Amino acid sequence: MTSDFTDSLRAFAEEFDLQFNKLLTPKGEVPQTLVDAMRHTTLAPGKRLRPYLVARSCELAGGRREDAWAVGAAIESIHAFSLIHDDLPAMDDDDLRRGRLTCHKAFGEAVAILAGDALSVYAFELLAAHTPSPKMAVDLIRELAQATGWSGMIGGQTADILGERESPTLSKASYIHERKTAALIRAACRMGALRGGGDSNLVDRVGAFGSHFGKAFQITDDLLDLTSSTEVMGKRVGKDSTASKQTFPQCVGLEESRAIVLAEVERAVEQLAILGSDADDLRSLARYVTDRNY
Amino acid sequence: MTSDFTDSLRAFAEEFDLQFNKLLTPKGEVPQTLVDAMRHTTLAPGKRLRPYLVARSCELAGGRREDAWAVGAAIESIHAFSLIHDDLPAMDDDDLRRGRLTCHKAFGEAVAILAGDALSVYAFELLAAHTPSPKMAVDLIRELAQATGWSGMIGGQTADILGERESPTLSKASYIHERKTAALIRAACRMGALRGGGDSNLVDRVGAFGSHFGKAFQITDDLLDLTSSTEVMGKRVGKDSTASKQTFPQCVGLEESRAIVLAEVERAVEQLAILGSDADDLRSLARYVTDRNY
Repeated sequence: MTSDFTDSLRAFAEEFDLQFNKLLTPKGEVPQTLVDAMRHTTLAPGKRLRPYLVARSCELAGGRREDAWAVGAAIESIHAFSLIHDDLPAMDDDDLRRGRLTCHKAFGEAVAILAGDALSVYAFELLAAHTPSPKMAVDLIRELAQATGWSGMIGGQTADILGERESPTLSKASYIHERKTAALIRAACRMGALRGGGDSNLVDRVGAFGSHFGKAFQITDDLLDLTSSTEVMGKRVGKDSTASKQTFPQCVGLEESRAIVLAEVERAVEQLAILGSDADDLRSLARYVTDRNY
Repeated sequence: MTSDFTDSLRAFAEEFDLQFNKLLTPKGEVPQTLVDAMRHTTLAPGKRLRPYLVARSCELAGGRREDAWAVGAAIESIHAFSLIHDDLPAMDDDDLRRGRLTCHKAFGEAVAILAGDALSVYAFELLAAHTPSPKMAVDLIRELAQATGWSGMIGGQTADILGERESPTLSKASYIHERKTAALIRAACRMGALRGGGDSNLVDRVGAFGSHFGKAFQITDDLLDLTSSTEVMGKRVGKDSTASKQTFPQCVGLEESRAIVLAEVERAVEQLAILGSDADDLRSLARYVTDRNY
């Protein structure tokens, strides 16, 4: 991967973070500890992949990058909410995230639970407040709720937690990946295209890209969990096998998992074929993220 | 209070529960344990005060009772989500709720956290899916998000938890009551009137009713916590003083708290003066709920 793309991703993250920082400043009276806990995880340095997908899909649909800030912030709020709750002692029980203390380690369990809760609700508040037409706002809210709720990310996380008691199978791992990770990545792409005014054909197309890319992304993460170090990842690694998580490496081994990643990236990129060079950034992202050392 | 009103409240709860039960049946593939945990708390027998407020405010605005089911279900989902998370060991650590095991006692902490998360998101999904006009849907979603999020219920619950470390004061107790309890009750009234097509004058009026009633309701609850028994309440009592919660009885004593309840109910009822006998049910409810034995 060219360092140009890495640079452009970093520049985007900086630009997005400025906007996200503004949006995460309360106008009314909010307990400062709650605001601090919400910002601790959301504003920790990150690649901002999901907001990037939102912005690029918005531009692909003919929208402007700045139209996409609030949608990106909504998706990133949901993502941060899921990280905060997943890290809790009752769930994955993690102390480190992105190289810093997890929210409950820094603020205590009660405040961490509430910070996650508040970020989840804030995502919908953002979409209701910052979308020009009510019709578009409702479409975006429906997409995000379905991707996040019982039939999406939260359903996937539940299956993940329950799956720890069962032996790994490919169908269970697929079910979990599709919901826990790919659903929100797919929603980021679809919502970006919707916000940019794209027709249903484009929305479906970038959504399908997001689905395949999301699957490749989660399997890559599982591979890194097995082969990388805490120092590189900024979080505890090697825990999936000890917790007998439902992962592709557990089911089909490292080599076959790597082959599935490559195949899913190719299927993702295929979805963008008719979009020409306008979609180069999405293609680069898919290859970049799944190309990490494993 | 006449038994007629009690009967009508019970009949309403039965009718609402039929509809709520249908709405809480997933169409897609959702882990059964998650559905069971969501339904455990939401469908436990309850008075359904908030959906009642929604339905009556909707009718006052000229809407039909059946228009209000989804809005009532959304409010009740948020309420149940808050109960599930408030009961967690890291928060109030309660084993009993409405006479049955709390969600985490029945399903474990991880699933309880996720069930609360899913109910919160589901509320917004319901409003996006079941409101006839996009403009109305966005108005409802904005009301609910503001009442629930960092500047509403979740902000209030955070202040409540943090307030346990501080000596009780009337201003802290008021801040907490307004957000933790009154905000959602106020939203129930406002959203019912919005759903029924009421103008902003009516929406503000029933909202102000809900604000005062909500405050009276919370103080009554705090009084009952001091003076009632676990058997009558279906949950542990007497815990507020041991945890040094910010409550009115802690700040101004039993007698003064009772006087404040009566004054708040009268201020609530005053808001409805120009609405004539159409608002009798709301008046009856305010007096009924705050007239419990304490």
